[in-house]
Amino acid sequence: MSKKEILHKLKSLFNPETVAVIGASDNPDKLGFHVMKSLTDGGFNGEIVPVNPGSKRIMGIPASPSIIGVRNPIDLAVIVLPADLVPEIFEECHIKRIKGIVLITAGFKEIDDPTGGKRQSKLAEIANRAAIPVIGPNTFGIINLHKNLNASFTPEFSWLEKGDVTLVSQSGGISHLLAFMAMRRNMRISKIIGLGNRLNIGFADMIAYLMDDPETKVLALYLEGVNEPRHLVETAIANRGKKPIVAYKTGSASKGDQESLSHTGSMAGNQKVYEGALRQAGIFCVNSTQALIDLSQTLSVCSLPEGRRIAILTGQAGPGMAACDVCETEGLEIAPFKPETQKIINELLPPLALRTNPVDMGPAWYNSDAVHGIVRAVMDDENVDGIILLTMFASANRDVVPNLSRLFIKWNQKKPVITCFISPPGIWDKHVISLEKAGAIINLSSPERAAKTMACLWQYKKMIKGA
Amino acid sequence: MSKKEILHKLKSLFNPETVAVIGASDNPDKLGFHVMKSLTDGGFNGEIVPVNPGSKRIMGIPASPSIIGVRNPIDLAVIVLPADLVPEIFEECHIKRIKGIVLITAGFKEIDDPTGGKRQSKLAEIANRAAIPVIGPNTFGIINLHKNLNASFTPEFSWLEKGDVTLVSQSGGISHLLAFMAMRRNMRISKIIGLGNRLNIGFADMIAYLMDDPETKVLALYLEGVNEPRHLVETAIANRGKKPIVAYKTGSASKGDQESLSHTGSMAGNQKVYEGALRQAGIFCVNSTQALIDLSQTLSVCSLPEGRRIAILTGQAGPGMAACDVCETEGLEIAPFKPETQKIINELLPPLALRTNPVDMGPAWYNSDAVHGIVRAVMDDENVDGIILLTMFASANRDVVPNLSRLFIKWNQKKPVITCFISPPGIWDKHVISLEKAGAIINLSSPERAAKTMACLWQYKKMIKGA
Repeated sequence: MSKKEILHKLKSLFNPETVAVIGASDNPDKLGFHVMKSLTDGGFNGEIVPVNPGSKRIMGIPASPSIIGVRNPIDLAVIVLPADLVPEIFEECHIKRIKGIVLITAGFKEIDDPTGGKRQSKLAEIANRAAIPVIGPNTFGIINLHKNLNASFTPEFSWLEKGDVTLVSQSGGISHLLAFMAMRRNMRISKIIGLGNRLNIGFADMIAYLMDDPETKVLALYLEGVNEPRHLVETAIANRGKKPIVAYKTGSASKGDQESLSHTGSMAGNQKVYEGALRQAGIFCVNSTQALIDLSQTLSVCSLPEGRRIAILTGQAGPGMAACDVCETEGLEIAPFKPETQKIINELLPPLALRTNPVDMGPAWYNSDAVHGIVRAVMDDENVDGIILLTMFASANRDVVPNLSRLFIKWNQKKPVITCFISPPGIWDKHVISLEKAGAIINLSSPERAAKTMACLWQYKKMIKGA
Repeated sequence: MSKKEILHKLKSLFNPETVAVIGASDNPDKLGFHVMKSLTDGGFNGEIVPVNPGSKRIMGIPASPSIIGVRNPIDLAVIVLPADLVPEIFEECHIKRIKGIVLITAGFKEIDDPTGGKRQSKLAEIANRAAIPVIGPNTFGIINLHKNLNASFTPEFSWLEKGDVTLVSQSGGISHLLAFMAMRRNMRISKIIGLGNRLNIGFADMIAYLMDDPETKVLALYLEGVNEPRHLVETAIANRGKKPIVAYKTGSASKGDQESLSHTGSMAGNQKVYEGALRQAGIFCVNSTQALIDLSQTLSVCSLPEGRRIAILTGQAGPGMAACDVCETEGLEIAPFKPETQKIINELLPPLALRTNPVDMGPAWYNSDAVHGIVRAVMDDENVDGIILLTMFASANRDVVPNLSRLFIKWNQKKPVITCFISPPGIWDKHVISLEKAGAIINLSSPERAAKTMACLWQYKKMIKGA
């Protein structure tokens, strides 16, 4: 069977009508319990079939002793059984014409013993013969929020809000970290895919699939090692610039390399070579989980800047200086405004203030109307490709952010606006959350992160243009 | 009058019995309202004297037309009047033998007009003649949480918890940002001091004062430019290693320099020269507000590592790799354990797991007792100078963090432990908060930040030892 036939079934894997949980359990000490809970709590509205020869019902749902006896067709099988039982189950999946497998079970290529590798090769042989795409082994699973499908052992993934960033990760731990970071900052997610040991589905396959997925706008990848780097790079090149891809790769440390091998069964390899190849393929590399989330969330909401000319508008001078430093280091330009814009600002700020870019709105820091007028004028300035807007709460300026909200909502992202509105907990949070949920702004928690992320937007654009 | 006499009064300035608010107001559009609110809401238990010739009572407190008519002595005067009225008030403060002034009013050396500089010189002349220390002008004020003294225009500063990190900042905006970051992560604060234009009290004076302040254990500085860099460096050298000082300096950008001048009236100067001088003086430089908070909070809670040998214990491999990369880049060593420790780990983890440092506790990731046993063994290992402990929530491991809590509480910080325990909102938060409040751990929100902060602890120690 061809690879093409395998990839063709990925759509059913991510959008199943029926999901069988092989190894389902009512015992909270078993992962099979947590997988059942994820599917049921997540509100999956297709059919769930718990499979366990020892139970008649699991979580109130009728169970089958094996998938062979199930009358209806099954699209996706989630397997949480001991490793030695898996080959037989794979043969049953073949017979049952299952469209896709999520293999949570560990104990394959990642373990420090040749039997693990052999077991994995055996499974690959069956899956490829049966033309079944397999996510895993050694994965927490997959989540597709657009289908309320939580096929993982972590029910809490369903707390995420539905959106258009898809996370593809070689590490379950990093997937959980990224998901919880996303939850804590109103970032909306399309899918989370734990590739694990990549039996027959790797990064290249996921990039190809997600490029045609209408529910994915931005891809965020976490990589350690890649089995077929050439395949990954070729696939990315073929899709260059179609959708933004941001990648974070670990494994530069020698100790990390050892860990990678025992993690998902591949060496991390030479970091610089990897990063060069990824860049060439139009994949933007960042160097931390935080930056991966900052940038992929921003790419999902903001338009790209047309150029490098950024306006910094700040309610207080210090945060503006911090942003200026980062902008200049990262190659952005704090450019002069058009005369019309400067005229408006000069009317709104007293003559002794810093009124040219960067604008210190300080002398009007608790005058909501002046701040509103300045932001509006700069938004309309053709000499400005993006705006960094910084305002720290200080009691007297309580109305400034609520007053700006209307401006953002009406404005529709003609150019990127990244804000840093910081208040004590509970004051501006609800305004920021509603603006973020409306896709009107990205709010980052320090001026440096705001500036760095704006710089990444520009650097990404430049990379894609090949400049 | 000598500088010594001025500095002698700083203790009264930060620990006043009586505070006068000159320019107090009942009108929420005036900063004098917010200052009154800060003092009253903050629970200041000394006497508050609102001063305003147009009011009999302000916020229910009897007001005086001027300080001259006040019968009792006044320790601290907070001034929120227009700039041109301030010289006369300073003369009155001299007559009234006031011990310290917080001058919130702006419009002095920071404005782009020679009259501002002249006004400031005039005030300096009066203050120095009267031997009164002045915080400001152009400041939001000062906060001393140990005295419930919020002498600022931001009542919300009083929401902070009392602790032993003192923030000294040239920028009000950065002070607010740092304070809100601190609130959002259970960081406890001693004082926040907004130096503003530094009439006669600068960074060097504050370092000298805070070295003898029993309520300050760690100093966090935010600097733009310094009027007397030599004085600062000499003061820091004289107190080298006595208490940790962490500094973040902005102003590397040419645009930022322009902003600095118009901000608190000094050029930012050459960044590299500054950083070299600060380092020589035993002041540890970081390069973001986030790093300033991460490190100063950690220094206030953790002991310093005896050496560079760090253990990485991780519940999932990916976050461990991310931490490994940062540790190696930053010069830490992922060193072998003592045989006794390794033996215990080998008993707790299956043979095919990565059991040497970095330890991937993955195969036992939802076995709380095994995780507990491993952490405990590594804590006791003399080959380990510090521990980075990473665990991402995943439903099946819900008990791991609560189960570890007892271990940390009993353990008393023999060596630094930095954790990254991340869960969906509301699951581990209360455990993490209570551990942080007990000073038992520092929990950072990504493995990279945990590793970077551990590296800073070691680099600080090395710098102080002169190695």
